Amino acid sequence: MTPRLAQQLAFIHEVDKLKYILRKTCLFNSQRHENDAEHSWHLCLMVLVLQEYSPEPIDTLKVLKMLLIHDLVEIDAGDTFLYDPTRQAQAHADAEEAAAQRIFGLLPQDQRDEFYALWQEFETADNANTRFARAIDRMEPLFQNLTNGGGTWKEHEVPLSKVFDRVKGIALGTPVLWDYFLEELPRALASGQISAGAEPQS
Amino acid sequence: MTPRLAQQLAFIHEVDKLKYILRKTCLFNSQRHENDAEHSWHLCLMVLVLQEYSPEPIDTLKVLKMLLIHDLVEIDAGDTFLYDPTRQAQAHADAEEAAAQRIFGLLPQDQRDEFYALWQEFETADNANTRFARAIDRMEPLFQNLTNGGGTWKEHEVPLSKVFDRVKGIALGTPVLWDYFLEELPRALASGQISAGAEPQS
Repeated sequence: MTPRLAQQLAFIHEVDKLKYILRKTCLFNSQRHENDAEHSWHLCLMVLVLQEYSPEPIDTLKVLKMLLIHDLVEIDAGDTFLYDPTRQAQAHADAEEAAAQRIFGLLPQDQRDEFYALWQEFETADNANTRFARAIDRMEPLFQNLTNGGGTWKEHEVPLSKVFDRVKGIALGTPVLWDYFLEELPRALASGQISAGAEPQS
Repeated sequence: MTPRLAQQLAFIHEVDKLKYILRKTCLFNSQRHENDAEHSWHLCLMVLVLQEYSPEPIDTLKVLKMLLIHDLVEIDAGDTFLYDPTRQAQAHADAEEAAAQRIFGLLPQDQRDEFYALWQEFETADNANTRFARAIDRMEPLFQNLTNGGGTWKEHEVPLSKVFDRVKGIALGTPVLWDYFLEELPRALASGQISAGAEPQS
């Protein structure tokens, strides 16, 4: 076995740990929490089915690559809950940066550089690929909460204004699907799945 | 919402069920069984990292698409265990065909046709993309069993000859990685992870 293959297999073993990172949201119509590996797979399928709703052409392969690796940093840094009022953004960003260095650092240099660049681009760049990829990442928990009687919105008493604030990026990546949620979210409010009230208690 | 989008969202909801289909094999270094969605995600990462070991160039996007959808038929037809001596191949193939019709049939016609063709190609065609994709699919349980003290080989008393017979397709898709297993599998035999003996009892 070459040193290069040994590094690649070490990475393939390591990323298995993503299957243990539980998200706050649950599967569709379920009380079972989703893990990051399942989540990443589902986002990729959503890209294949929904890519026509990007207002600009996307590089499908690049978007899939981003979504396949986007949560690997959570192996070390843990799940990021969108509505956590106690979250310390800078500390979490630092932890994710250290995780990216360690986990992508298991790979040979060329693949390390490629994966790190993909992760950075997903996190920070503003282009058609990242807008669509981030929109897809935001959408899955909305679908899940809508089938789970409010899910994390209800559990954490998240008001509609905060939901809109956190997911408004969907409008940039896919206006057609944003219009869908503009219809669905007020319905969720009307049925009590989302609260209208004050900010949740920290 | 257009009828087309309604069909696409129905498919996205339906495929969530892949997260409940448990495989016989367990996660790396673990007793926790893997589900098909996690498995599909891990295969895609393996493609990104190991594609240089295909002896011919592959269409990475097409291989990823195949692996993202290749197990969806198991939502209806159940997991296929490679070493099951009681498996009735034709009955299982019929069940998978019916599942493909139903599950891909949730999609709009053009996407239904695309996904069905991809699944058929993965299952039956012989080209660089399918040889590599099927090799990747065969390799993950080998890695898992090797880190799990023999895993399903030990549990089901699978002899080395049968392991080789079931995974020999890896040699077609990626000779370099087949060479790796040619070294590792006899070691697994020597350490008692695989039996040398007779066929397992049915």
